[in-house]
Amino acid sequence: MLGSTHGTLTTDSRRARAIACGEHPAQAVHGRPAEAGDLDVSGRPLHADVPDLDRFFRPESVAVIGASDTEGRPNSGITRQLLAWSERVGARFHPVHPTRESVFGIPCAPSVAALPEQVDLAALLVSDPLPVIGELAEAKVKFAVAFASGFAETGAEGAAVQERLAAAVARADGLRLLGPNTNLNAFERFRDDLDGPAIALITQSGHQGRPVFSLQELGIRLSHWAPTGNEADLETADFISYFAERPEVGAIAAYVEGLKDGRAFLLAADRAARRGVPVVAVKVGRTETGARTAASHTGKLTGADAVVDAAMRQYGVIRVDGLDELQDTATLLARARRARIPGSSAPGAATPTPTAPRPAVPRPEGVVVYSISGGTGAHFADLATEAGLPLPTLSEAKQAELHQWIPDYLSVANPVDNGGHPVGDWRGPRILDAILDDPAVGVLICPITGPFPPMSDKLAQDLVAAAERTDKLVCVVWGSPVGTEAAYRETLLGSSRVATFRTFANCITAVRAHLDHSRFTAAYRSPFDEAPRSTSPSFRKAQALMRPGQQLSEHAAKQLLRAYGIRVPREQLVTSAAAAVRAASLVGYPVVMKASGASIAHKTELGLVKIGLTSASQIRDAYRELTDIARYEDVSLDGVLVCQMVERGVEMVVGVTHDDLFGPTVTVGLGGVLVEVLRDSAVRVPPFGEDQAHAMLTELRGRALLDGVRGAPPADVDALVEVVLRVQRMALELGDQIAELDINPLMVLPRGQGAVALDALAVCR
Amino acid sequence: MLGSTHGTLTTDSRRARAIACGEHPAQAVHGRPAEAGDLDVSGRPLHADVPDLDRFFRPESVAVIGASDTEGRPNSGITRQLLAWSERVGARFHPVHPTRESVFGIPCAPSVAALPEQVDLAALLVSDPLPVIGELAEAKVKFAVAFASGFAETGAEGAAVQERLAAAVARADGLRLLGPNTNLNAFERFRDDLDGPAIALITQSGHQGRPVFSLQELGIRLSHWAPTGNEADLETADFISYFAERPEVGAIAAYVEGLKDGRAFLLAADRAARRGVPVVAVKVGRTETGARTAASHTGKLTGADAVVDAAMRQYGVIRVDGLDELQDTATLLARARRARIPGSSAPGAATPTPTAPRPAVPRPEGVVVYSISGGTGAHFADLATEAGLPLPTLSEAKQAELHQWIPDYLSVANPVDNGGHPVGDWRGPRILDAILDDPAVGVLICPITGPFPPMSDKLAQDLVAAAERTDKLVCVVWGSPVGTEAAYRETLLGSSRVATFRTFANCITAVRAHLDHSRFTAAYRSPFDEAPRSTSPSFRKAQALMRPGQQLSEHAAKQLLRAYGIRVPREQLVTSAAAAVRAASLVGYPVVMKASGASIAHKTELGLVKIGLTSASQIRDAYRELTDIARYEDVSLDGVLVCQMVERGVEMVVGVTHDDLFGPTVTVGLGGVLVEVLRDSAVRVPPFGEDQAHAMLTELRGRALLDGVRGAPPADVDALVEVVLRVQRMALELGDQIAELDINPLMVLPRGQGAVALDALAVCR
Repeated sequence: MLGSTHGTLTTDSRRARAIACGEHPAQAVHGRPAEAGDLDVSGRPLHADVPDLDRFFRPESVAVIGASDTEGRPNSGITRQLLAWSERVGARFHPVHPTRESVFGIPCAPSVAALPEQVDLAALLVSDPLPVIGELAEAKVKFAVAFASGFAETGAEGAAVQERLAAAVARADGLRLLGPNTNLNAFERFRDDLDGPAIALITQSGHQGRPVFSLQELGIRLSHWAPTGNEADLETADFISYFAERPEVGAIAAYVEGLKDGRAFLLAADRAARRGVPVVAVKVGRTETGARTAASHTGKLTGADAVVDAAMRQYGVIRVDGLDELQDTATLLARARRARIPGSSAPGAATPTPTAPRPAVPRPEGVVVYSISGGTGAHFADLATEAGLPLPTLSEAKQAELHQWIPDYLSVANPVDNGGHPVGDWRGPRILDAILDDPAVGVLICPITGPFPPMSDKLAQDLVAAAERTDKLVCVVWGSPVGTEAAYRETLLGSSRVATFRTFANCITAVRAHLDHSRFTAAYRSPFDEAPRSTSPSFRKAQALMRPGQQLSEHAAKQLLRAYGIRVPREQLVTSAAAAVRAASLVGYPVVMKASGASIAHKTELGLVKIGLTSASQIRDAYRELTDIARYEDVSLDGVLVCQMVERGVEMVVGVTHDDLFGPTVTVGLGGVLVEVLRDSAVRVPPFGEDQAHAMLTELRGRALLDGVRGAPPADVDALVEVVLRVQRMALELGDQIAELDINPLMVLPRGQGAVALDALAVCR
Repeated sequence: MLGSTHGTLTTDSRRARAIACGEHPAQAVHGRPAEAGDLDVSGRPLHADVPDLDRFFRPESVAVIGASDTEGRPNSGITRQLLAWSERVGARFHPVHPTRESVFGIPCAPSVAALPEQVDLAALLVSDPLPVIGELAEAKVKFAVAFASGFAETGAEGAAVQERLAAAVARADGLRLLGPNTNLNAFERFRDDLDGPAIALITQSGHQGRPVFSLQELGIRLSHWAPTGNEADLETADFISYFAERPEVGAIAAYVEGLKDGRAFLLAADRAARRGVPVVAVKVGRTETGARTAASHTGKLTGADAVVDAAMRQYGVIRVDGLDELQDTATLLARARRARIPGSSAPGAATPTPTAPRPAVPRPEGVVVYSISGGTGAHFADLATEAGLPLPTLSEAKQAELHQWIPDYLSVANPVDNGGHPVGDWRGPRILDAILDDPAVGVLICPITGPFPPMSDKLAQDLVAAAERTDKLVCVVWGSPVGTEAAYRETLLGSSRVATFRTFANCITAVRAHLDHSRFTAAYRSPFDEAPRSTSPSFRKAQALMRPGQQLSEHAAKQLLRAYGIRVPREQLVTSAAAAVRAASLVGYPVVMKASGASIAHKTELGLVKIGLTSASQIRDAYRELTDIARYEDVSLDGVLVCQMVERGVEMVVGVTHDDLFGPTVTVGLGGVLVEVLRDSAVRVPPFGEDQAHAMLTELRGRALLDGVRGAPPADVDALVEVVLRVQRMALELGDQIAELDINPLMVLPRGQGAVALDALAVCR
């Protein structure tokens, strides 16, 4: 959609694309690099067009259409802010107004056409931006921002108007639009005195972005703020892609209510993942209430939450719930990027040269908790361990070293409890250096719950100093609810190296996100590089079986599976008792007999399945009974299936569902009663690799069933993974033709024996 | 233990007890009130002795043993602080030192015996408090505080010394001890200018209590701080009981690393529950790491975490994880007590008269989210709904009323989005009053994520004013990370009515705790009032079956169940094939045959169970096979069980486990493979009522299985609950003799048909 709606690219965006998909090592290693225009077999793009937003954020010339300086008019406030911003970024400023001579003393152009130069950015202070779009295009304006509201956020009528606006922008060669229903957040004052990698912010609500933006007041660097509004054109994904290339950006923080295009989001997240740039996101829509309310706010789909959640995890996007978590996690991840890794480009550089993809962060994973109170250490360690942070026991040698400075009766195994006193003197820095010097340690966390200036002031200073001497992460939790203490405000927040938190929970969430993201980045292979571009030989066979709008019979659904190499039981479709007996001897006793026909549901409940039949007479009886029931229940049959009976294995379910936002998705779950009662399943958005298929199984609460319980042999997990991948192939090739596909159960046999689809349901779209 | 260790009570504590267990209405309603010395059938107390701590917190005279005023000595600092505190609380101050004439100008007594009067509180500034205890007892000192460390927190040797100290205190008639290894937290400066019900604080670590205590700096009232240290005598439970009776206390906040006595804690929590006083607690020990570290800090057991968790829930104790949640939840719950309910005593009264038990809070449950940004409302509503807060849709009439002041295109259904502007003028207060006036609404939450002074300052003022006009709860989330804004610091924190949070999550946690606690209190019936005091007729029968230290045979274990009225299948124990055939015709075909003997485990895996036997010849074969296998596996049999076969039902497990902290506990879970793989079970500490047995089932993730899935009929849940209660009776009567009891499976038949224990395992202690 992205590629198609915007037509020919401008020279600038061509250049951006060339940079973005250039032959840098990471892509060369990971197979054939994706190219623009490349589509996978489902017809979805394999590559994001990244708009070159340099001239949006740092324009050389700005026009304000509808500029005003009349006191008290809202447009005057906006004009004033845009003027001040233009001065800060060094852009020439051009007010446009049909009747005014000048605005704020600057000569006014009567129309866009009359502008004295080609401008980079035009702010539209008009209630209806549509009529202006053509003029902007003619004047070769690169970017427009539409503040007007009354579009998709107001309902169907507004959505139609927005559609027309989007179409006009798509026709306007080279013009990109931010908004409508956006605001001035992009043009606020950013502190330029702060050090270290910055947070780039994307929000779909100005109010909701404010706390992240105001982190600057706590000494945390922000580089950009993109308030995407209704996303008639530019969307969250565009900004993620752009920010991922910026050398000054350490982490991207996003507040998302709805996504415009699922695939565009994944491609942007992929781009960030390749670069190792963390994306932290709040995504509204965990509940029906949230989804409904968010939709009425931005007019966008929130998507099925489990699918959104899985999609984010597939691309390493860190999803958090609260804005406080968003702030704290993004801050830590940005600071974690400071690590002086050989070959990485200097942070803070302002030139937009593409950075080399970041090698796997070599920082060790071990987390050490260091406190001046045994209680604090115990409490923090308890919560950290529960959250899965690795707290290694320090080596005997390291413990002996620490006991030079810490009394023997205190435990320094990890958590390290110094009992308080050593922080007050020369021992404090030595302890910190000794911990940070341990090769098993990558993160030092010092929770200070109670400020006690004689100790905590010195401790804070020592932590800030120690952080300057190391590449490892130093985190502090300042637990006092007061927050006006000098050690907090001045010492800790004055450091661009220490990450300071206010709660244990947020520190743990952020450190875990950092460790997860490092591990993710090190192992990441873009699935888009390996996504199939053309149909497999299975496709033609499968295609012949599809019946648009209909449910296939069990037999036909199984043929579909067979076409994709998924094993089904030996079976024959018969239409007489005598044929059933012949089929049974071919299939092999014991057999299962089932009524077969399009649109049969709940076969078992209706008595349309007979299992464990061991003789010709049982088969004849069963045939009679099945056809009688079908007649009685008014179920139309295409025959009776005589199937091989497969008993011993673990029942699973594998299926395809169509998601509004992401298209076909693949689900795997535990079968039988479990799937109904516990809904123990995992979902993924194609394309994904074998690693993700394995990860799906790890997510299942009942995963242990596959490893064998109560003396059962371990199941053939490899065969299960193979089925998941084959189903993915079906989803990619047939996905948009399939409304629903369910293998239920897939019997996973003991290791080495494969997996058999005992029953299948397929509904065509 | 509480009753026995402290011997005869002093006059004061007798009085306290008389007050505490007086015939107030709540207890009279709930059956026979418990009395001191009353024991349940397991020999555990049914009533807590509540020490009268008035003279501890407000002594008339204080002695400091080991007082000093030598500059630079730690004891001088402590003496100075105790002197200042004595002056604040109006106590006479007596330094004690063998050689000093005076301390800080106050004449010194050479020994405790030489004190000029009987003192209420003696602070022990000596490294070994043990020798002083006798002197204190002779001098009729009421309370002692021991600061010295080096006791149970240092290991086994220190624990032995602490045992001797505890024994000496138990012998010292009338003396109660705080510590050892405690600190000065109880004697800090409490602000007396703050309004509203206070938080009383109990901590096992001074450092960890500091953030709660410093809430005073944010305008939140604290009344007490009890740092319990090693709890050689006074423990967390004593302070909970005492604080629950104090009229100025609105909520009790506790930081707990380990519990000294499980039952004492439950009795204290019961006392708070009867009074409707919320107890909010952090309890370390969710993980092995946390438990180990906490134990090395305080020398106390953390207990099996799932049991601690269940025990807290049974008595309405609100368990939270972070100190920030502890602060925020305790604050809201304290403020929630302000409601001017007819008949409740005036908050803030300083006299320690017992309050009448609080009637169920009549505040409605509905929560309304009110914001100046649609995004904020959507985000908050999403998280609140996910956490289970009830966000009712406002009535059409109410919405119409709100639309008088809020533009029509904004949704006011709940969340109420005012779009910003109305808060700036006269409409702001009207909207707030209109929402708070709605009879469906009990809580108004206003999340303000971004401070925008023209709107947020006025909004904050309006919220504070509206909160003064209502009994309903008004919560604000001040989402700015900066926290120095005047609207936050002055306006919001200046209110004793509004509860101000910094994160969505903590607001949601606290409001949910409030709603849960209100519901809990309204429905609360103390299980101690109805706990059995004497053995049932079953007991004698059961007693005869117990074999100390041994595992019972399946047959014997089932007899044990039968003694308690739990149904088992018809079965006979036979020792010959012929007898088996006779038994089968008595039991009725088809039958199950199982090897029976003490210490047989994994019967099914060994092939020692034969099911579905339908003829005499099958029975003879099965008998031969079972005895052959037993011989081969070297399993000693007391015979073979011929049992009625029970097929159709839901398999559950019910059992008894012995917990170090709480004694016997009762567990119920889903049977079969589910219990092994998913550990889907719920636990309770006896005594508990039918309501809790039902609540256990609600906690099961697979609960729906009992309601009937895939066409299965609903199971006999009443019969299951009855079995749980009968097992509880066994746990109470036999509990300390049982190491393990497991009914697995308990087959719960369709509704009306009961439940049958198909297999049972019992191990005697």
